[in-house]
Amino acid sequence: MPQGKPSVVPEDGLTTRQRRTRPLVIVHTGPGKGKSTAAFGTALRAWNQGWPVGVFQFVKSAKWRVGEERALQVLGRSGEGGTVTWHKMGEGWSWIQRGDQEDHAADAREGWEQIKRDLAAETYRLYVLDEFTYPIKWGWIDVEDVLAALAARPGSQHVVITGRDAHPDLVAAADLVTEMAKVKHPMDAGQKGQRGIEW
Amino acid sequence: MPQGKPSVVPEDGLTTRQRRTRPLVIVHTGPGKGKSTAAFGTALRAWNQGWPVGVFQFVKSAKWRVGEERALQVLGRSGEGGTVTWHKMGEGWSWIQRGDQEDHAADAREGWEQIKRDLAAETYRLYVLDEFTYPIKWGWIDVEDVLAALAARPGSQHVVITGRDAHPDLVAAADLVTEMAKVKHPMDAGQKGQRGIEW
Repeated sequence: MPQGKPSVVPEDGLTTRQRRTRPLVIVHTGPGKGKSTAAFGTALRAWNQGWPVGVFQFVKSAKWRVGEERALQVLGRSGEGGTVTWHKMGEGWSWIQRGDQEDHAADAREGWEQIKRDLAAETYRLYVLDEFTYPIKWGWIDVEDVLAALAARPGSQHVVITGRDAHPDLVAAADLVTEMAKVKHPMDAGQKGQRGIEW
Repeated sequence: MPQGKPSVVPEDGLTTRQRRTRPLVIVHTGPGKGKSTAAFGTALRAWNQGWPVGVFQFVKSAKWRVGEERALQVLGRSGEGGTVTWHKMGEGWSWIQRGDQEDHAADAREGWEQIKRDLAAETYRLYVLDEFTYPIKWGWIDVEDVLAALAARPGSQHVVITGRDAHPDLVAAADLVTEMAKVKHPMDAGQKGQRGIEW
């Protein structure tokens, strides 16, 4: 854990306070577990600060994230912290499972256009773009467009992007990058995912 | 993300269902961020299943985990999921900051004795032992005692242990181990931690 002593003081013309509240682009990548889970943990802190939180899920699954979604929805409704808005495929953006790669690509692009509009409007203070590395990896969304929109975002909006194989240009542009490496997983010992742990 | 196809089926005499609900020891280690954050994200899933969750914080700080603690306390009180019990230094175990290493060692051992009692009594279904690698690393708590208590725990109790430098015997005994590697951190660019992101 960082102990509050930066190893260098940059010559960026910012005050310590400005630098301290600089909005961050955070990437959780790598083959290990915890990428999305840690992003939702970060959302707890943002909620505690009273920030509006927007979650955008880019890979659909019936089971995945149900626990995190319900927990964050309950927190958002509690009135004791920030709001939580949860966007996912099949809801919101008319994201429909049609089994056709072209449709998925169009849906992913539509989701990304919504995020760009929200960034421009400063709708949220923390964005969780869950599994967003994949539509970039698959060429559905142009990484240059992503970097331009992130660089141009106004105000103090933090963005957390999760998923394996983060594009090198995204890693280069990010402020904080953590690689989750798999050391050992129960799947290796023939165990399938289980309720309460995997979802 | 695991797609539900184990690469091997073990000859352990268990049914798929028994194997599937086998209680897990999970370790989040490594120098990168997200170890504790992902553990608290896992707690959201456990809460969603209605499980009693016990959090045990082994490193005291005024700021760290305040967001996670408040979020999990609000969830625990909501009545919409499981309960959450949060133990930390200075509360519960008469854990007092006296600046004396021997006292800290005794306090850590006292905390661990409480966890052993809770495991024996099946008090919780998910245990988050936050920063628990350190008292083991510092020799305050015997790793063999930890492994024996984990191996002997009854019922279906999952245990998540976080912290750098997890003891090799703990890694060997765990079911799921993720190493969080630091790729890039704002501290490297002279930025200190900030509200809503680091705490």
